[in-house]
Amino acid sequence: MTDSLARMQIADGGSGNGEKWNSVDGDLAEVFDPLNFHQAAAQCTLRLWRYLDDSAVKGLDLVEPAVLMKAARELMTDERERVADFDEGRLGQIVDLYLNTGIQVHSPGYMGRQFSGVVPLAGLVDLVSSVANQPSSFYEAGQLPNVAERLMAEELNRLIGWDPAEFAMVTTSGGSLANLTALLAARNRAFPGIWARGVAEEGGRPAVAISEEAHYSVSRAAGVLGIGEEQIVRLPVDGQGRIRPDGVVPVLDAAARRGLKVFCLVASSGTTSMGAFDPLDELAALTRPRGIWLHVDGAHGASLLVSERHRDRLRGLAEADSLTWDAHKMLFVPAPCTLLFYRDGDAARGAFQQRASYVFDEEPDVYSDFDSGDKNLECTKRPMIMPLWTLWSVYGPALFARKIDHLCAMTGQAHRMLRAEPDFTVLHEPEANILCFRYDPAGLDRTALHRLQLAIRNRVRADGRFFISKVDLDGVAALRVVLMNHRIGAEHLAMLITEIRTTGQRVLRENAARDDQKDGDQR
Amino acid sequence: MTDSLARMQIADGGSGNGEKWNSVDGDLAEVFDPLNFHQAAAQCTLRLWRYLDDSAVKGLDLVEPAVLMKAARELMTDERERVADFDEGRLGQIVDLYLNTGIQVHSPGYMGRQFSGVVPLAGLVDLVSSVANQPSSFYEAGQLPNVAERLMAEELNRLIGWDPAEFAMVTTSGGSLANLTALLAARNRAFPGIWARGVAEEGGRPAVAISEEAHYSVSRAAGVLGIGEEQIVRLPVDGQGRIRPDGVVPVLDAAARRGLKVFCLVASSGTTSMGAFDPLDELAALTRPRGIWLHVDGAHGASLLVSERHRDRLRGLAEADSLTWDAHKMLFVPAPCTLLFYRDGDAARGAFQQRASYVFDEEPDVYSDFDSGDKNLECTKRPMIMPLWTLWSVYGPALFARKIDHLCAMTGQAHRMLRAEPDFTVLHEPEANILCFRYDPAGLDRTALHRLQLAIRNRVRADGRFFISKVDLDGVAALRVVLMNHRIGAEHLAMLITEIRTTGQRVLRENAARDDQKDGDQR
Repeated sequence: MTDSLARMQIADGGSGNGEKWNSVDGDLAEVFDPLNFHQAAAQCTLRLWRYLDDSAVKGLDLVEPAVLMKAARELMTDERERVADFDEGRLGQIVDLYLNTGIQVHSPGYMGRQFSGVVPLAGLVDLVSSVANQPSSFYEAGQLPNVAERLMAEELNRLIGWDPAEFAMVTTSGGSLANLTALLAARNRAFPGIWARGVAEEGGRPAVAISEEAHYSVSRAAGVLGIGEEQIVRLPVDGQGRIRPDGVVPVLDAAARRGLKVFCLVASSGTTSMGAFDPLDELAALTRPRGIWLHVDGAHGASLLVSERHRDRLRGLAEADSLTWDAHKMLFVPAPCTLLFYRDGDAARGAFQQRASYVFDEEPDVYSDFDSGDKNLECTKRPMIMPLWTLWSVYGPALFARKIDHLCAMTGQAHRMLRAEPDFTVLHEPEANILCFRYDPAGLDRTALHRLQLAIRNRVRADGRFFISKVDLDGVAALRVVLMNHRIGAEHLAMLITEIRTTGQRVLRENAARDDQKDGDQR
Repeated sequence: MTDSLARMQIADGGSGNGEKWNSVDGDLAEVFDPLNFHQAAAQCTLRLWRYLDDSAVKGLDLVEPAVLMKAARELMTDERERVADFDEGRLGQIVDLYLNTGIQVHSPGYMGRQFSGVVPLAGLVDLVSSVANQPSSFYEAGQLPNVAERLMAEELNRLIGWDPAEFAMVTTSGGSLANLTALLAARNRAFPGIWARGVAEEGGRPAVAISEEAHYSVSRAAGVLGIGEEQIVRLPVDGQGRIRPDGVVPVLDAAARRGLKVFCLVASSGTTSMGAFDPLDELAALTRPRGIWLHVDGAHGASLLVSERHRDRLRGLAEADSLTWDAHKMLFVPAPCTLLFYRDGDAARGAFQQRASYVFDEEPDVYSDFDSGDKNLECTKRPMIMPLWTLWSVYGPALFARKIDHLCAMTGQAHRMLRAEPDFTVLHEPEANILCFRYDPAGLDRTALHRLQLAIRNRVRADGRFFISKVDLDGVAALRVVLMNHRIGAEHLAMLITEIRTTGQRVLRENAARDDQKDGDQR
């Protein structure tokens, strides 16, 4: 009877707009048609094939935003009243414009940032993720992603060395959010009343100890969490950018005298500027007896754990409390894929507190035990583990180790090559795949040296053969390369050196000519 | 001379491990080979074609985590020493397992959550994004994504109605993070000293006003930001779950008497439980004169703006200060794609404060003007706008309007059908595409009614034909459908009603039999 009643209502269209629902099928059926999808897929993958097949040395084709706005706007259909017919040409133009205007992460000319030239298979897994759309904060919505998180956590924790029965891992949307979450867990452990009562009512003056070289997301987190940036205590670093353990105790003692309660010390493995690795073992020996949470921001460098040759950089990690690890950096998967590890799984549950009957189950069961919604900020979370777990499953860990070893070796090569150049200054021994240096011909003062590096960086970027970055070290700009692409060989480093020298000399000549002109004008 | 020096060093291998770098090419070249990519792409897209082509009514194939762990573990290569050869079969099994164990967002049996059955073309754009890997917090790294954000912001702001010269929009990783960011911007505007000095030193007692129906991420944000959940002031709601404007002033006055400074009122458009739309116009009339920031959590319902038929639900939005809008809900793109709008662009820059020479330029230029890294938490950010902008460009806004209209109409149909069933209770008039109801045969007390809904929900899920959710309303569980798939027709609603009734009666019979058994045992 119920069924026939329902059918009757369908037949007469309920409130009278039944026909509308049926007519909607035409347009939408086209858009969702599997064959149309397959044809568009062929078009996109062919373009990606060509893109991956291009081994030209190129940097960035930097376009004026206003020009690009105009080009992009012209690719937008004018049709507003009905669903526009699929236009294969328009899609092709969009994909071409997208590929051509980006950083060329697969070219040997790309040496500028910590984003990966991703393993292409990872992109295909992302395609599946996007079409299947299984958000992964809750087991029932994305079963395999939740299981894959456990499996990857086990694999990687073997390299970290925490108790398999005690540790926990969550995925989250980027290293900044992971650092924030770890600091939150640490804050809530040290000040259990803050969550409910707030920083003002809880009393005490929560503080965080970091070095000047910590990523900006860490000091930002102090601002976000209501602790206040003024409650950040700065630890001294050595010439390589590493926290000096002998400088830690005086700083902590001085903080205590000011009435601050340092609940967390953040170490970097390695730093963003120079890729420096803080001495975790010595730091843990100082934080443990004081009950201070040791968080390791390994966004960039935790991946070195996968390499037998390089994992010693993180010696002492087993004594830390939490670790941020960006797989979208040196595990070569699409961004973001950040893993946040806790030595003590209970701490992971301390970061957040909530109840919401529409997602959290009243009676926990074997399924909800796999949920992570109570341990990460996101409610809807991309199944970001899937590309990583798939690569690990298909190729094994050696894929990552090989590429990391190559990148670090090539960075060592860059160091040796630059050191041999009389008109370059290398600013540190590279510990991983980041190297900072200056084009430094004789006779420049600090200001001139600073401005020269900025000019070189922007000119090299504008010339479009190489893409490198810059960073301020001791108040003077430096050039910075991050080698993320295994296609980079010594020949490309040699080309870059030549390009920087040529560019630098051109800038100096132009400056001299301008000064002459000015002098002339003043006479 | 430099070049020849470099070549010399390449030839002798520098530190002696030069051969290693060359030999690495073999393995890695296979993994990155464009032709191999293209073949794997063909395999994946064929599977997705079949997946999209399957119109069977199905819910969830819920697998015990331990069983799935075992199956997944068996798909992982044992090879650890060298890069394993690509195994097409293994990839196929992984994709199949992934597709089969997820929520079936493209099936008419999926009615459980706010995740979309995405427009398939959006997945292809994500494929391009993942391979090209252009993080989009900085213009230079992802030029088109940054431009596309501006274009989409302009398009959507026409529907919001803010001053085009004043408003701002950022993309961020999910609605929870967007709500957090908006509250942070509001906090920092009302308490400009908190960022540097912290909540404790700044003085005053910051507080937030929300209804009981607000998403859990909002009250969570109060815990995160150091305000404290106890400083949340609760606004009364009507029977439909909407904030009652006549209840707001007494609550705000009472808060002021307790010494609280309410700096933000959060309204929902619509709520997660029932899809209720708070009366923005009336709320804005109350918050504006008091200098209280009105944030609208439109994660679910802001998309109704695209529909002429339904946009009136957000009447008054033009008077609000900020808006969270999840495009991964009712704009049908892969998660996450959250847009956070501010009426006043300066407020957007107030959420965070930082300096970091490796990413932020010393001298802002036309390029850095497009950067969003200073306005969103993420440093590395997925170019999440690209699927949305591409769909909008290729199909136009009518695609979204058509699908939204259909989903809302079909939810109205569900409401009429359920109201006509004597053994069901419908709990509200649907305002969008969410509907809550109970299977409610005569004679059950509150506790029995509650347990019956939970049992039905879990049984229906386990039976695997339909996937619906549950929510507690007035302390008693209710069944909840969210219609996100345009393939759902009235016939599927009728099937669901029958399934729920059959399941409910089975549960009641089993309970009765168990009670008889117990009575018998006690005799």
